[in-house]
Amino acid sequence: MSLDQVLARIDGELEPALKRLATFLKIPSISTDPAYKADCDRAADWLVEDLKSLGVTASKRPTPGHPMVVGHAGETGPQLLFYGHYDVQPVDPLELWDRDPFDPAVEDRPKGRVIRARGASDDKGQLMTFVEACRAWIAVHGALPCRITFLFEGEEESGSPSLVPFLRAHADELRADIALICDTGLFDSAVPAITTSLRGLVSEEFTIRGPSRDLHSGMYGGIAINPIRVMARIVAGLHDAQGRITLPGFYDGVAELSDEIRAQWQGLHFDHEKYLADVGLTVPAGEMDRTPLEMIWSRPSCDVNGIWGGYTGDGFKTVLPAEAHCKLSFRLVGKQDPQAIHEAFVKYVKDMLPPDCTATFHSEKGAPGVQMSTDDPAFEKARQALSDEWPRPAAYVGCGGSIPIAGHFKDILGMDAMLIGFGKDDDRIHSPNEKYDLESFHKGIRSWARILDALSR
Amino acid sequence: MSLDQVLARIDGELEPALKRLATFLKIPSISTDPAYKADCDRAADWLVEDLKSLGVTASKRPTPGHPMVVGHAGETGPQLLFYGHYDVQPVDPLELWDRDPFDPAVEDRPKGRVIRARGASDDKGQLMTFVEACRAWIAVHGALPCRITFLFEGEEESGSPSLVPFLRAHADELRADIALICDTGLFDSAVPAITTSLRGLVSEEFTIRGPSRDLHSGMYGGIAINPIRVMARIVAGLHDAQGRITLPGFYDGVAELSDEIRAQWQGLHFDHEKYLADVGLTVPAGEMDRTPLEMIWSRPSCDVNGIWGGYTGDGFKTVLPAEAHCKLSFRLVGKQDPQAIHEAFVKYVKDMLPPDCTATFHSEKGAPGVQMSTDDPAFEKARQALSDEWPRPAAYVGCGGSIPIAGHFKDILGMDAMLIGFGKDDDRIHSPNEKYDLESFHKGIRSWARILDALSR
Repeated sequence: MSLDQVLARIDGELEPALKRLATFLKIPSISTDPAYKADCDRAADWLVEDLKSLGVTASKRPTPGHPMVVGHAGETGPQLLFYGHYDVQPVDPLELWDRDPFDPAVEDRPKGRVIRARGASDDKGQLMTFVEACRAWIAVHGALPCRITFLFEGEEESGSPSLVPFLRAHADELRADIALICDTGLFDSAVPAITTSLRGLVSEEFTIRGPSRDLHSGMYGGIAINPIRVMARIVAGLHDAQGRITLPGFYDGVAELSDEIRAQWQGLHFDHEKYLADVGLTVPAGEMDRTPLEMIWSRPSCDVNGIWGGYTGDGFKTVLPAEAHCKLSFRLVGKQDPQAIHEAFVKYVKDMLPPDCTATFHSEKGAPGVQMSTDDPAFEKARQALSDEWPRPAAYVGCGGSIPIAGHFKDILGMDAMLIGFGKDDDRIHSPNEKYDLESFHKGIRSWARILDALSR
Repeated sequence: MSLDQVLARIDGELEPALKRLATFLKIPSISTDPAYKADCDRAADWLVEDLKSLGVTASKRPTPGHPMVVGHAGETGPQLLFYGHYDVQPVDPLELWDRDPFDPAVEDRPKGRVIRARGASDDKGQLMTFVEACRAWIAVHGALPCRITFLFEGEEESGSPSLVPFLRAHADELRADIALICDTGLFDSAVPAITTSLRGLVSEEFTIRGPSRDLHSGMYGGIAINPIRVMARIVAGLHDAQGRITLPGFYDGVAELSDEIRAQWQGLHFDHEKYLADVGLTVPAGEMDRTPLEMIWSRPSCDVNGIWGGYTGDGFKTVLPAEAHCKLSFRLVGKQDPQAIHEAFVKYVKDMLPPDCTATFHSEKGAPGVQMSTDDPAFEKARQALSDEWPRPAAYVGCGGSIPIAGHFKDILGMDAMLIGFGKDDDRIHSPNEKYDLESFHKGIRSWARILDALSR
């Protein structure tokens, strides 16, 4: 089967594809707001119909929340599961939008044409790059080159409460050789990326208590233990002078980069100065002997998210507080064990407690980091396909945050995922005036056509 | 002139003295609440009339707030300035009172009779111990043994905004050989006290800023500086492992106790275990080589009063905050210089800042500690007079907090003050069901009679 014909068809049929996307974008499928429940349902219906028009066996599947859309197509080649989500973020503050967020338009901008609408990038535009690639394959060849299961979720922007139960209940139907997830971005305008590692997360809240009530520092200053001081010592002691985290065993399971990945990352010429300058900083503040990309992609971190205690109002109050509170989180990589790190943290805090102080903990079930097995030849095939489409070679990149769906696919369905997307840093997802570059849409469709071709071989 | 006759008169006239106090206590002179402005004025009028009834030349003096009452009497002996305040704390929550706070009554309680009312202890009852002592002297001998200026304030419970200007404007009229202040307590039921040192105060609020906005720890965790971590290091570094404060020069001007004071304090058998147990603690947490009384009376302290930054709501948010805030205060003793300590603190914080972090400061004008010159023989005379009245010898004690009036008398009028009072720890001042022991009132009047006698010699 000829890829060139498919690519030509994509180029020739871009306008109808844009029209379909516009129709999809007009549906205000805001999943967090119950007022838009019918719209979410309508977006699911629209997808079912669109898939059916391709010859995909598709249906809407009820959940306790918004429905899933599942479709199956293709009879040969590897089994793929494609994931995207049809729900979008709320639009407020509406007054900051230059147009109705649900009245999409293609605008000419200095850097090129963009599709402007809520969901244009996250995730309706991205989702449709894959659907349109399939449409072109079917139009040209009458069939897909791979067996594909489509899975579209309607609750991604509201925490995906129905996702795990749904994956568990339909594991046999959904399991595939590999998953494709289109909800991420390019490394930069010229360099496409496959995200192959994601950091996990352990969240901890803890309270240090000392005196049984708030005290007056005139009466007790100098004799009574101060929980904020204790908290400060605990927080300050979590890092050493080199920026390493001091919990015993914390780095167990953290692997060094392979020479190949290290070379790829060096080739990205990551502009950490710009990355930091965007947020008013100049100096990487992580482990001294690590590169900036390692700091955010392949090294764990410990971040204090919030702290509070004592008097925080206007003016001064000579109070010696009874308690102090802190929230912090660990970003995990590789094989770091969330439970072991939680336990090491609790032990560390308890060991730091002076007499008369107690600590209580409130933790969230942690999630380990996710590391895809790039030994699977599918990864190199997809990377090559992307490299063929874009100006510069594609790279395996890391993601400093977690993308829960990738972990769920691994845990529940036992398969790796390739996170491939075409969003750009300036897409303003979750913000007013969200957009998706026409180039992202067009070359995104072409990229998936190439990837399907490559994976079928 | 015979002291014994005066004491006998006090004993015989206790009932009328209690009636006068009850009349005074019925006036709801709450200075913080504008609704009680006329009542404050009425309390001042009552005092003027009561002083006049003794033959004191007394008048109400206007201020921008509530009036002062000033009176003069006596033609021989040393010049004394007696200070008390006629305003009282608000009474809420009213429902926690067992009776109308402005309907005073003498109640029989297991530990003895008490006068129950707002202001019974703080400070109407205490103030009247001195007035009644003067009344008895005049009744028995037709004159006072000392020259006395009475100064009664009506804004003590609302920060004394008019006090300093009034002292400045009337310095010549008010200046005396020594001041007597009756607004403190006994050391314990058996041991009277003269407070001869008070700790000063320096209050600091500071903010550490890092990134230009709150960041997502998935994108920036591990590469961006975290202001809460910086704050924690700064706060943790203020004390060393021995509990000493680390600011360079901090202990300049801190003197060791004299052997005499050390012996007196040892004789007090301060029950620090009970003092700490009252607030749920067991172990003194100050400088390791200091006694508990030193920690609160004669050693400086550094107390974190409040800290806040980042996400402090329910649940978890993976935010890397742009800023962190802290309020802290230093209690000062001896000749420690508030300005020098402020400057040392600012320098310490700035020296601790890593790249990309800034600190801003908001400070209050500090006040140094106050140390009375107990070399003045008046102190030993008063201490002996108190020792004659109470079961055990009187002691020179410290006060861990500041009593601004004592500092003002020193700064503006150039005189030391003897802080002598008869309140008890369980008087519930500022709280519902305030009381003053009848014993405090009765022996308080007798104490002042003895002190006036002693000072006149």
